[in-house]
Amino acid sequence: MTPIMSKSDAAALVSAARIRRGLTWAEIAKELGAPLVWTTAALLGQHPMTREQAARACAFLGLEDEVAESLQLQPSRGSAPEVMSDPTVYRFVEALSVYGPALKELIHEEFGDGIMSAINFQVDISRRPDPDGDRVVVTFDGKFLDYKW
Amino acid sequence: MTPIMSKSDAAALVSAARIRRGLTWAEIAKELGAPLVWTTAALLGQHPMTREQAARACAFLGLEDEVAESLQLQPSRGSAPEVMSDPTVYRFVEALSVYGPALKELIHEEFGDGIMSAINFQVDISRRPDPDGDRVVVTFDGKFLDYKW
Amino acid sequence: MTPIMSKSDAAALVSAARIRRGLTWAEIAKELGAPLVWTTAALLGQHPMTREQAARACAFLGLEDEVAESLQLQPSRGSAPEVMSDPTVYRFVEALSVYGPALKELIHEEFGDGIMSAINFQVDISRRPDPDGDRVVVTFDGKFLDYKW
Amino acid sequence: MTPIMSKSDAAALVSAARIRRGLTWAEIAKELGAPLVWTTAALLGQHPMTREQAARACAFLGLEDEVAESLQLQPSRGSAPEVMSDPTVYRFVEALSVYGPALKELIHEEFGDGIMSAINFQVDISRRPDPDGDRVVVTFDGKFLDYKW
Amino acid sequence: MTPIMSKSDAAALVSAARIRRGLTWAEIAKELGAPLVWTTAALLGQHPMTREQAARACAFLGLEDEVAESLQLQPSRGSAPEVMSDPTVYRFVEALSVYGPALKELIHEEFGDGIMSAINFQVDISRRPDPDGDRVVVTFDGKFLDYKW
Amino acid sequence: MTPIMSKSDAAALVSAARIRRGLTWAEIAKELGAPLVWTTAALLGQHPMTREQAARACAFLGLEDEVAESLQLQPSRGSAPEVMSDPTVYRFVEALSVYGPALKELIHEEFGDGIMSAINFQVDISRRPDPDGDRVVVTFDGKFLDYKW
Amino acid sequence: MTPIMSKSDAAALVSAARIRRGLTWAEIAKELGAPLVWTTAALLGQHPMTREQAARACAFLGLEDEVAESLQLQPSRGSAPEVMSDPTVYRFVEALSVYGPALKELIHEEFGDGIMSAINFQVDISRRPDPDGDRVVVTFDGKFLDYKW
Amino acid sequence: MTPIMSKSDAAALVSAARIRRGLTWAEIAKELGAPLVWTTAALLGQHPMTREQAARACAFLGLEDEVAESLQLQPSRGSAPEVMSDPTVYRFVEALSVYGPALKELIHEEFGDGIMSAINFQVDISRRPDPDGDRVVVTFDGKFLDYKW
Amino acid sequence: MTPIMSKSDAAALVSAARIRRGLTWAEIAKELGAPLVWTTAALLGQHPMTREQAARACAFLGLEDEVAESLQLQPSRGSAPEVMSDPTVYRFVEALSVYGPALKELIHEEFGDGIMSAINFQVDISRRPDPDGDRVVVTFDGKFLDYKW
Amino acid sequence: MTPIMSKSDAAALVSAARIRRGLTWAEIAKELGAPLVWTTAALLGQHPMTREQAARACAFLGLEDEVAESLQLQPSRGSAPEVMSDPTVYRFVEALSVYGPALKELIHEEFGDGIMSAINFQVDISRRPDPDGDRVVVTFDGKFLDYKW
Repeated sequence: MTPIMSKSDAAALVSAARIRRGLTWAEIAKELGAPLVWTTAALLGQHPMTREQAARACAFLGLEDEVAESLQLQPSRGSAPEVMSDPTVYRFVEALSVYGPALKELIHEEFGDGIMSAINFQVDISRRPDPDGDRVVVTFDGKFLDYKW
Repeated sequence: MTPIMSKSDAAALVSAARIRRGLTWAEIAKELGAPLVWTTAALLGQHPMTREQAARACAFLGLEDEVAESLQLQPSRGSAPEVMSDPTVYRFVEALSVYGPALKELIHEEFGDGIMSAINFQVDISRRPDPDGDRVVVTFDGKFLDYKW
Repeated sequence: MTPIMSKSDAAALVSAARIRRGLTWAEIAKELGAPLVWTTAALLGQHPMTREQAARACAFLGLEDEVAESLQLQPSRGSAPEVMSDPTVYRFVEALSVYGPALKELIHEEFGDGIMSAINFQVDISRRPDPDGDRVVVTFDGKFLDYKW
Repeated sequence: MTPIMSKSDAAALVSAARIRRGLTWAEIAKELGAPLVWTTAALLGQHPMTREQAARACAFLGLEDEVAESLQLQPSRGSAPEVMSDPTVYRFVEALSVYGPALKELIHEEFGDGIMSAINFQVDISRRPDPDGDRVVVTFDGKFLDYKW
Repeated sequence: MTPIMSKSDAAALVSAARIRRGLTWAEIAKELGAPLVWTTAALLGQHPMTREQAARACAFLGLEDEVAESLQLQPSRGSAPEVMSDPTVYRFVEALSVYGPALKELIHEEFGDGIMSAINFQVDISRRPDPDGDRVVVTFDGKFLDYKW
Repeated sequence: MTPIMSKSDAAALVSAARIRRGLTWAEIAKELGAPLVWTTAALLGQHPMTREQAARACAFLGLEDEVAESLQLQPSRGSAPEVMSDPTVYRFVEALSVYGPALKELIHEEFGDGIMSAINFQVDISRRPDPDGDRVVVTFDGKFLDYKW
Repeated sequence: MTPIMSKSDAAALVSAARIRRGLTWAEIAKELGAPLVWTTAALLGQHPMTREQAARACAFLGLEDEVAESLQLQPSRGSAPEVMSDPTVYRFVEALSVYGPALKELIHEEFGDGIMSAINFQVDISRRPDPDGDRVVVTFDGKFLDYKW
Repeated sequence: MTPIMSKSDAAALVSAARIRRGLTWAEIAKELGAPLVWTTAALLGQHPMTREQAARACAFLGLEDEVAESLQLQPSRGSAPEVMSDPTVYRFVEALSVYGPALKELIHEEFGDGIMSAINFQVDISRRPDPDGDRVVVTFDGKFLDYKW
Repeated sequence: MTPIMSKSDAAALVSAARIRRGLTWAEIAKELGAPLVWTTAALLGQHPMTREQAARACAFLGLEDEVAESLQLQPSRGSAPEVMSDPTVYRFVEALSVYGPALKELIHEEFGDGIMSAINFQVDISRRPDPDGDRVVVTFDGKFLDYKW
Repeated sequence: MTPIMSKSDAAALVSAARIRRGLTWAEIAKELGAPLVWTTAALLGQHPMTREQAARACAFLGLEDEVAESLQLQPSRGSAPEVMSDPTVYRFVEALSVYGPALKELIHEEFGDGIMSAINFQVDISRRPDPDGDRVVVTFDGKFLDYKW
């Protein structure tokens, strides 16, 4: 018996294949017929794929069955602290540190005592053209859940 | 000479006045003619207000001049760690931990090597009605900045 | 304008009144007609009370209006690290550290990819008589939420 | 002499075999005639198994003797911090952070000065059907131990 | 309503009275008819006293009723990290760091899988005369608890 | 030239041999004619052995010369944080957190300003039969050292 | 006897006076005839001032003698972690995290094994006009110190 | 499929080749026609190189194609904590800790509310001769970005 | 009853009196007839003084009896982390980080398995004239203690 | 191309060779004609050696050229936290925690505002015979550097 390939090893092979084949994440998502951010996150190890999704992704990328097996694993989610301090990711962390308490106030004002779900949840990213320089627009969209006993 | 009231003391008085007068953050923002999230963040101490904004906010809330003086101070921005673990704020932290690496990949794919600015930046929050339960929609919108030597 | 009394100051006064009047948390919960754990948590500052609940609790405990005002505040939830290392609380932390991964496996096996909500959630505590020594039984009961894009 | 296989390596092989054979934790627990959460925790490395339990588990899963030897080892218990921040496990951590002080108050009120044992202790998990969505019910059941000099 | 004096404030007053009256902890323990380490720990805030014990201690030390009220409070146990790095306390921490794994092995060898209770537990300290310099002898004595499902 | 086997690798081989040969730590200590806790700690890597002790231990356990060479190395002492949170070890940590300040007071009262040495020091462990359940008795015995300039 | 005013209290009064009198740091530095960054750092508590400098600064700002006394104190230097995460300061931290290892390589290549002194050291800040947006230019200028036994 | 060589492995090979061939970072930067600090940082893994830059660097250093592939990877930027405590790097950290708050004040005074970009940014290092010992001069030069909603 | 003045409050008053009276630590040590470093450390709160020493120091400095009472208290020793990062103190920390492992090797080589006592210990500081700049010479002098069971 | 052997691997081989050949650090230092503490620190990876020193050390110890190449590398200096908690090293850390603030006061009193250099710096260790037990004497000797703008 051999252990199942870890999700981080699988993600490293997905990245290598993607770069060497000259594919974009968008092309892979299109091939899978799945949302762009979801697909990217899943291939990086944050969501389990179905057997069909994993097989199709590996066929498209020319990867072995061991990778497909790993992509179906239930993940342990989350990122190491060093990932959060990469400048591209850190700007989101900083924005939360500045605007988090205001978002909390406004969620409570609009919806009452509760939270935005991070499970019944989707994220989207897009480019918004702007004469002063195009903009990155990221939308967090989660179901409101009220504290209910 | 007395020190200027700290921004956290000012925020506590703003909150007390807002609640006792039965005002919403939206009503205050409207009174100031300023964006909702910006106004909330500024009154909580994360942005300096102009003299006029501070005076108008304090008049609307029935607060003393000392509060208005504090609201104009240049802040030291950011939230204490215990704020980030409040469940309403934490869901955003968790979403970043799950989707941060995917967002990084997709920013680089779409824009090249760089970041979404957290300075030339705005946040918006809205309610999206949904038959399965209304949704909290938060949009991060920042100018793309490429690494440029 | 004075700031609203902090929830920790209010909790200290609730505790002082409860002990000096010789009341149990169960008697207070009964007076409020609210669940026992919820009532205790709310009076310790983890849930906002309605105006009526706060007024009734303060009347029962002989506390001032300032306490009632504080009890209605939207809380910033969570406990300081030193609270989690008190032996009575730590045993729960230790149990999670030992059984957390097993609970994760079994939630995924029974329900699929998702979580037990900590928002649509209730806790109960009871005494189970046992000839070898009575037992503390604590039940966590939360709605299953599946990862849904 | 070779070292005994580590419990984490053994757990990785147990998981690989379980998935490849299409077995559930419940089926393994039934095969062993042992409680579900206990069995899962033990196979993940948190409890030592008897020689018979280990042999039976390995036979059922088609695993080598080295795995069985490892499963009998006395463990060093507990989970790494990154395990505790996986969202499925974190919800329990968050619930403790919110309700821990209330549970402490109520244990002292009902039983006196002492703790719920985490050693003379069992955990159970079940599904409770609910028209608004089925619920995860987890029961912590430990002997009360009073501070006794 | 005023809050109950904190246990750390009460301990500071106990220490001041003890020193100014020239009393030893041993004399106080004898006055209370209670074990030495238990009495010291209780007066420092780690154990609740009965009404009688608290009253007697305060009478002996010439302390106010507010102190006696505080001494009866259920404590939140444990010491701040800076206390653990005082050299006199740190030597115990260091000894645990060096001998902890060996003690774990020997508890399991002698008793099986389980722990020494820190609740059904007592500590004693004594001086052992020795020609090479007298010795501090500290005995930890706790009931063995085996992992029992 | 090859590096000397690390003490943790040596300890892993000692443990494997001990278990496979069905030996107890007590039998090994008896074979070496050395104290029980010292022997266990030394074989786990916390004390250097003499050439004779190392050779005898390896002969008794059927281990290679490389292990004997490692057992004679001067150690870097102490345990990783994850070892200290294993429940069997943690109970000692918790006892120190509760009773550490009291022990400090009583050492100063009995001996003056100074510490219990953790170097001129020995630990013993024994079983004390008790009708309510046998007890683990651990004795820390160190020379008193006074602050002396 | 009263304690000397803390440097952080003095800095808060300096800031209040500076803002209320409408003075810039540059004007204060000019008044003192001292470098701009040094003056700002000294008034914020990071350098001791001479009696004359402190007196002149307080006269210019209309501050009490207690402030002047504090400004002459030998400081304990450095900033709290929360200061380092303010976005304006954090960009310098991030730049160090990205370029620190390269600066180390180049110092060693140009100067040999050693460091840039942070004691025999000066910092300057200036604005460099640029058609694409003016630039902040900060110069660290320290004596090279080679490792010398 | 094999994973792409990690940037830290590539940096180790670059360093080995540079030292064995007796090349300076300055010679490599000249060969690439790129700024000195940028080139050093890029080869240490903090910036992606173009295909041409990577190929040229590897040809100059006699390195394999696998290294060139790695040098083109988009990096995860930043340094581990142990790098920041190396004395040569730490002096910069210390200078920031001492002068960071002053730099923040002066950026706001000269430019208004905003930051020095660490993305539209360049660093330079030079030697300034001085009779009292030559000096290391490091210039941080970044575009000012104002908080703009 | 009032609590005894804390050692940090006493140290702040000692410092204020010392500065306002224009006294050096050396003059105070001479007045007490005690070693220089010991006296300074004791007045800063790291050693208890005898009644006579405390009275004499307070008389010399013109301080109240409350300070003298505090100076006799048994201290809880050690410094907060922010003290250790002050540059003047940090250089010692850095030297230990660089030379600590070498000192350990050489203590074991010269003395065997054991430590330099930090209790039976004295520190001295002096100025050594040097044409290239005078030198700070600090001597740590502690009794060797061998690991002795 | 192969990477240069890491300094920690080289140090492990130096230690193995030293022990197997029965050499002391003092003998190696004598062979190199270099100071004792410097030599030990350099061979443990904290200082770069010249080509001649490295060759001579490796010849004396019978080590391969790869080790000599590594010994010439510019190091990243400092020790991991677990090294600092080894008891032999920790006593120095503790002494700094107790006497650090006093040393800071006395450096400022004797020399003015500045530091003891840890770069223009040497350490020595010696044995001082004493009838009550020989003593470890460690001398830190660094050039005074005054804060100079």
